Amino acid sequence: MKKIKQLLSFFKKSVFEKNLVLLIGYTTNNLLLFQTALNHRSVKEHPTENNERLEFLGDAIISSVVADYLFKKYPYKGEGFLTEMRSKMVNRQQLNHIAIQMGLKRLTKFNKLDGGLKTSQIFGNTLEALVGAIYLDKKYEFTKKWIVNKMIQPYLFMDELELIDINIKNKIIGWALKQGKQVDFVLAGEQLEGRRRLFTINVVLDGEVIASQKGYTKKDASQMAAQKAIETLGL
Amino acid sequence: MKKIKQLLSFFKKSVFEKNLVLLIGYTTNNLLLFQTALNHRSVKEHPTENNERLEFLGDAIISSVVADYLFKKYPYKGEGFLTEMRSKMVNRQQLNHIAIQMGLKRLTKFNKLDGGLKTSQIFGNTLEALVGAIYLDKKYEFTKKWIVNKMIQPYLFMDELELIDINIKNKIIGWALKQGKQVDFVLAGEQLEGRRRLFTINVVLDGEVIASQKGYTKKDASQMAAQKAIETLGL
Repeated sequence: MKKIKQLLSFFKKSVFEKNLVLLIGYTTNNLLLFQTALNHRSVKEHPTENNERLEFLGDAIISSVVADYLFKKYPYKGEGFLTEMRSKMVNRQQLNHIAIQMGLKRLTKFNKLDGGLKTSQIFGNTLEALVGAIYLDKKYEFTKKWIVNKMIQPYLFMDELELIDINIKNKIIGWALKQGKQVDFVLAGEQLEGRRRLFTINVVLDGEVIASQKGYTKKDASQMAAQKAIETLGL
Repeated sequence: MKKIKQLLSFFKKSVFEKNLVLLIGYTTNNLLLFQTALNHRSVKEHPTENNERLEFLGDAIISSVVADYLFKKYPYKGEGFLTEMRSKMVNRQQLNHIAIQMGLKRLTKFNKLDGGLKTSQIFGNTLEALVGAIYLDKKYEFTKKWIVNKMIQPYLFMDELELIDINIKNKIIGWALKQGKQVDFVLAGEQLEGRRRLFTINVVLDGEVIASQKGYTKKDASQMAAQKAIETLGL
């Protein structure tokens, strides 16, 4: 009976309300708040009517929830790893990708004719604004679960994301192989910084040093050097 | 009677526990968590024993709470204003200043002999770690109140912060425009300091470098370089 009542009340809703329920997964009384979250600046100029304030808020909430998620998922990993994983999870492209898969492309109101419009970011920004609205509507703990269940679990594959940085070194090695060139990662130095050892790794391409980085572990230094080499080579 | 019991139990505590109660304002059972929050990397190398993981978490929580605080305090202001106010409230110097006033200088465990140590940031980082610990101990809503009551209300004077023009960079750009000169902020270098990237920004006036500063973010480095340039130019 309760299910039927819910179903009936669903069909009485406006198209916007129906879409919203399907998007956020619950019924809200704050329709205006969510309308604001879906308004790009190109359709509403005033700060109280477009989604930029909510985007500011939602961006911070997503960062916190992801920090908490990573802190607990990887209890033995250092801050550097956690920071890196977070930026893999919530960078502009990733958020935009998630937003489009959620269907935000159809729901976001924006003006295609606006010259300054970067459509590569707009849906990710709307997703941040949506999270800001959910946070204002339902507070932090609810929003935390929402982010984990609706954003992280379905769209972010942690095992794959973990592997991405390993591929940086492989990327150069693979590239060199194809080019018939020789690439080496060489330990070029080891110094003491306080009580800690600091390693310098050089990336050497056919005998020439093309990148050099320091790090507290050889692996860190190698990764950073590989990243720099990729930028230098324009790969 | 209850007050007396509380007082008696306070005197039974260890020195560390007493200091902790005075610092955070409540009694916790998670002593180990707070000990970790007060350990700088220079005294404990392992990620599970020093405060860097908690700093990562606390930094995000502070950003969220401040975003929420500003969102509600300034209901008609745009995202740009909110972002700027947040960076005035929680930049490195400000956090370090608050931390020292809270007494974290005496409670943080660090090794002065460590060469890589920047004491200008260490207490602010400890404060972030402390917030991370409070969040794990008492969840978000409690931590939110803690940040507002213990960090914002006593140490951050919003009226004054509103008046500070932190966008020093704009000041020089505006000045150069009036003078018919060309000013550029150029990324002159990027190096690794431990796991963190350190950026060097040069201020270039009509092709001549007039200031150069390093920072952990390009924005920080730009601001500091702009400050230096202003002093050099006597603006």
